[in-house]
Amino acid sequence: MTQLEAARLGIATEEMKLCADKEGVTPEVIRRGVEEGSIVVIRNNLHNSIVPLAVGRGLRTKINANIGTSQDHADVALELKKVEACAASGADALMDLSTGGDIRSIRQAIMKASPMAVGTVPIYSAAANAMNRRKSIMEMTADDLFQAIEENGEDGVDFITVHCGVTRESVGRIEAQGRLLGIVSRGGSITARWMDYNDSENPLYAQYDRLLEIARRYDMVLSLGDGLRPGCLADATDRGQVQELIVLGELCRRARMQDVQVMIEGPGHVPYYQIEANISLQKSLCEGAPFYVLGPLPTDIAPGYDHITAAIGGALAGAAGADFLCYVTPSEHLRLPNLEDVHEGIMASRIAAHIADIAKGYPGAMEKDALMAKHRSEFNWEGQIELSIDPGRSRSWLERSESAKEEGCTMCGEFCAIKLGKKDAHRQ
Amino acid sequence: MTQLEAARLGIATEEMKLCADKEGVTPEVIRRGVEEGSIVVIRNNLHNSIVPLAVGRGLRTKINANIGTSQDHADVALELKKVEACAASGADALMDLSTGGDIRSIRQAIMKASPMAVGTVPIYSAAANAMNRRKSIMEMTADDLFQAIEENGEDGVDFITVHCGVTRESVGRIEAQGRLLGIVSRGGSITARWMDYNDSENPLYAQYDRLLEIARRYDMVLSLGDGLRPGCLADATDRGQVQELIVLGELCRRARMQDVQVMIEGPGHVPYYQIEANISLQKSLCEGAPFYVLGPLPTDIAPGYDHITAAIGGALAGAAGADFLCYVTPSEHLRLPNLEDVHEGIMASRIAAHIADIAKGYPGAMEKDALMAKHRSEFNWEGQIELSIDPGRSRSWLERSESAKEEGCTMCGEFCAIKLGKKDAHRQ
Repeated sequence: MTQLEAARLGIATEEMKLCADKEGVTPEVIRRGVEEGSIVVIRNNLHNSIVPLAVGRGLRTKINANIGTSQDHADVALELKKVEACAASGADALMDLSTGGDIRSIRQAIMKASPMAVGTVPIYSAAANAMNRRKSIMEMTADDLFQAIEENGEDGVDFITVHCGVTRESVGRIEAQGRLLGIVSRGGSITARWMDYNDSENPLYAQYDRLLEIARRYDMVLSLGDGLRPGCLADATDRGQVQELIVLGELCRRARMQDVQVMIEGPGHVPYYQIEANISLQKSLCEGAPFYVLGPLPTDIAPGYDHITAAIGGALAGAAGADFLCYVTPSEHLRLPNLEDVHEGIMASRIAAHIADIAKGYPGAMEKDALMAKHRSEFNWEGQIELSIDPGRSRSWLERSESAKEEGCTMCGEFCAIKLGKKDAHRQ
Repeated sequence: MTQLEAARLGIATEEMKLCADKEGVTPEVIRRGVEEGSIVVIRNNLHNSIVPLAVGRGLRTKINANIGTSQDHADVALELKKVEACAASGADALMDLSTGGDIRSIRQAIMKASPMAVGTVPIYSAAANAMNRRKSIMEMTADDLFQAIEENGEDGVDFITVHCGVTRESVGRIEAQGRLLGIVSRGGSITARWMDYNDSENPLYAQYDRLLEIARRYDMVLSLGDGLRPGCLADATDRGQVQELIVLGELCRRARMQDVQVMIEGPGHVPYYQIEANISLQKSLCEGAPFYVLGPLPTDIAPGYDHITAAIGGALAGAAGADFLCYVTPSEHLRLPNLEDVHEGIMASRIAAHIADIAKGYPGAMEKDALMAKHRSEFNWEGQIELSIDPGRSRSWLERSESAKEEGCTMCGEFCAIKLGKKDAHRQ
């Protein structure tokens, strides 16, 4: 029985109870959310080593970290270190986006190491296999693709990105309107080119029920991918992007009818003033499904700092109702992220999610900030360090000097406003 | 004749023309803005070595970097390196917030080195002098304070933060309501404690005309400081803060009547959902004066990453109409910033300002992003590097490999969506 099937039958499952505990809500809140589709409980039914992850309305905003090899850098040991970094830095989930090396064995190693939910993009392994075996991605068959999805299910993958909305109709609208940067989603681009080359509809759309059958068997959450997301501000919220979202809304309903849980992926590069509209549109077209946003990035000109750009976009998206933020690392657009990039990306994304949670009125979010203020007013440095988002950095950066003594830090010294504010300050 | 006096007489000054050139508007746009008070042209009339800086409605959102010694770290050479870093990283202005060492000679050295407008907080040197000569900040006299302001004017300082709204009335409202973290502005805290200890009104309020007379003489822009800004989310937008803003609105009008230009400083630590309201409130209460925001910081729990927190708040504030963003460095709340912190803080702030400029519809802002997208679509790596916000980082981080060749980078390699999108991609 899938989580959605159970929810429909009024059953609060063990998974829902575990999620409810973590979220500080009743199991009934989770069950009702799953039933109506506003919450997904993410865990492959073969993946019992992890605590399931709930994502959706009324819950804490979650963040995902992408890791994975490329064809130029396929170092499994490094990827496993990234898994550790994801856990240590506080990611809620990770996606293995490997496209280089033995993708399946890398995935299995990552699954084994990860204490958190794992997502993948199965078309990457299908495409890599086609390239290796048949000399071209274009020779990939529909069966290759479904086999890759099946293997991901067998391996215990908890959620998969599937670009089902990249259809002749939506790609046609992209082409009719014209774009500065075309299709920038790797899966979306592979799909669109494959459709063109093979003169065929997208198998994940044409044979959507076959996909649902596999997803249902493993209770894998479908993350309906935005293969047509804009790759630059100039292409944002165009007719092709919105056409895809309409299709995803229809597919979302069909998945629910087969007891398959769904979330929707969102852009991408989007001007700041369009971000809230994008969230409203998704929530409306997809009947309240959880929204998993990639950034969004409200400028194109800041490579090397795209974690900051994504945090700016992510905070606004989250405050407007996005449920799940995909991190972006400082290396985006320049190189494959290293360990430090993973850490920086997660921190930026966690800050955005927390700011959004305060804006959403998520219970307990603002209380953390109030406790930090209390520690500051009491010069409780240890409390500040422990409550801070990165205690390791806080501890190593905090400089104290003789003049600052127990009170103040080296930034203000004798000019510490809080110290001055103490009633006896003027007696010194 | 001050800029405001000239503007009133219908004269577009040389300074206004220089600003107009830099902004890509007509001198009349600047003149009218100065006349109505929505734009300030920042340059002390003795400081002819710099190009004046225009800040306000309809203009590019500007960013300021704070530097300066503390009593624990008073290294002039380091501060001069920070000036260089500010210029190299693209700050529009800097503030010398020195509180340690020989403050006046440090200021003079910074003024000499800076190619951009310089602001200060004169109460710091007045307080430091009182501490050194009279053994306590509380022994500072009103004359000490006005003398420090006069010296700042003589030294060519372009804008000064003056906490004129920290009055018995506004401090009384803080005390009546109660705060978790009290007063966190250094100048505000010194002023409030001084008022209490000396049982006197704030000299900058009681003798405001004396301040205006000095400011007018040097055409120094008054940055009416938010001495009662909240130091934590829990204290944000409380009655004391808003009371101070009301007073600043009144003082803003009085300054304009004496031909003195004014901008208003804003919070501080503010929950995300209150940021837009704070901007609206300031614009309304202060009759359209330029708003100079310190962050704002929409969470308290991210020391070590407060540049990111400030960029999240600054983008929203800027999009809502803030004109001038004060950077926050990663070191905020932990230690005095080092050179790298200055650079990181400026970059984060510039990203926020640019995102805000796109949201505001500032002419030319979005065009940069479109050009970056064009460079990406053409694999024009040199163009991307040059257009990026930090060309040095982009160049050093960009990794290219054999497999990526002319097209793609090591992040995606053969899976590059843009490469796949080229019409002949499937032939490879």
